Amino acid sequence: MRPVDLPHASRLINHGPTVIVSTVRDGRRNLMSAAWSMPVEFTPPRVAVVIDKRTFTCEQALASGTLAISIPGRTLADLTYTVGTTSGRDLPLTGPDKFAHYGVESVPGPVLGLPLVAGCIAWMECRVLAEPRTQDLYDTFFVEVVSAQADERVFAGGRWSMRADNSDLHTLHHLGAGLFAVAGDPVQGRILDPA
Amino acid sequence: MRPVDLPHASRLINHGPTVIVSTVRDGRRNLMSAAWSMPVEFTPPRVAVVIDKRTFTCEQALASGTLAISIPGRTLADLTYTVGTTSGRDLPLTGPDKFAHYGVESVPGPVLGLPLVAGCIAWMECRVLAEPRTQDLYDTFFVEVVSAQADERVFAGGRWSMRADNSDLHTLHHLGAGLFAVAGDPVQGRILDPA
Repeated sequence: MRPVDLPHASRLINHGPTVIVSTVRDGRRNLMSAAWSMPVEFTPPRVAVVIDKRTFTCEQALASGTLAISIPGRTLADLTYTVGTTSGRDLPLTGPDKFAHYGVESVPGPVLGLPLVAGCIAWMECRVLAEPRTQDLYDTFFVEVVSAQADERVFAGGRWSMRADNSDLHTLHHLGAGLFAVAGDPVQGRILDPA
Repeated sequence: MRPVDLPHASRLINHGPTVIVSTVRDGRRNLMSAAWSMPVEFTPPRVAVVIDKRTFTCEQALASGTLAISIPGRTLADLTYTVGTTSGRDLPLTGPDKFAHYGVESVPGPVLGLPLVAGCIAWMECRVLAEPRTQDLYDTFFVEVVSAQADERVFAGGRWSMRADNSDLHTLHHLGAGLFAVAGDPVQGRILDPA
């Protein structure tokens, strides 16, 4: 993983991949998948992500004021689906947290020390911006990215490069019920002349 | 195009495709591409979309209180890139609007009469929800979908079906600078057992 310049961080989710949101509070880590996220600004890098208010992730993100976003590649489809269908709140507090429950390792983020999901192709640490109205009405969190990293085999120089030789690193895009489309097969748009 | 049940409408953008936002005011139509959108709720179907406040689309959406979202397939990459790089505000008011300028036809929406982009694979008509703070701070519009339609060759029964035989209808996902990944190659995630 290599650092991504912050003005390029929003590009990591420009194309709408499903992400994994992770949190930590009092040493207890959690993670859940989130199909619904988007950039809202490049500079400063800001992102919106929908986190259902009934989730443990929501509780932890609000309490800590931070969350991390990890982007899974194709090979993590099972994990991505799984952590979107179970809650860390259902695990006994005295036992393993949701990372450990599924045997997922975390890597500490460089700025906030948040638990980034090992094996993902990109990571962002974020601070939650205070937007109680949209959190309440639309489950929508606005966050600011404070660190970003990506797997240089598929994102380098501020750009995604999805090729046949790195197809295991292509992003997942949730269609519903655990079925994901995979991004690939790039097409370069050209500027059209007026009719 | 077939009607999509409103509780399924948010699924149309569940996987993060680039969309085209269109508007009309005083008979003048406009359209622009928007890479940044996401569902925020299934019932009622609500969506967030980022529309730069300097755009003609923003001005028209605020004035009319409505906007349409059309989803282009792979074959519309050139149009999608083009209408994201030019402004309808630069066209003389006495001449063709941006649809006509690029030879794009519009189809009137069934509920609001909004100009839907012909040739796209899905359409939604939306009412703008009053969220001046997030419009101002994050260029983020929250809208509610009031009609939805999709090309039944690729979206039927509330589900996307991306197959080899309908690859021209697969969605575009903007990576940057007019380069789009195309969604395809579906992967079914399975629920993992604990470690």
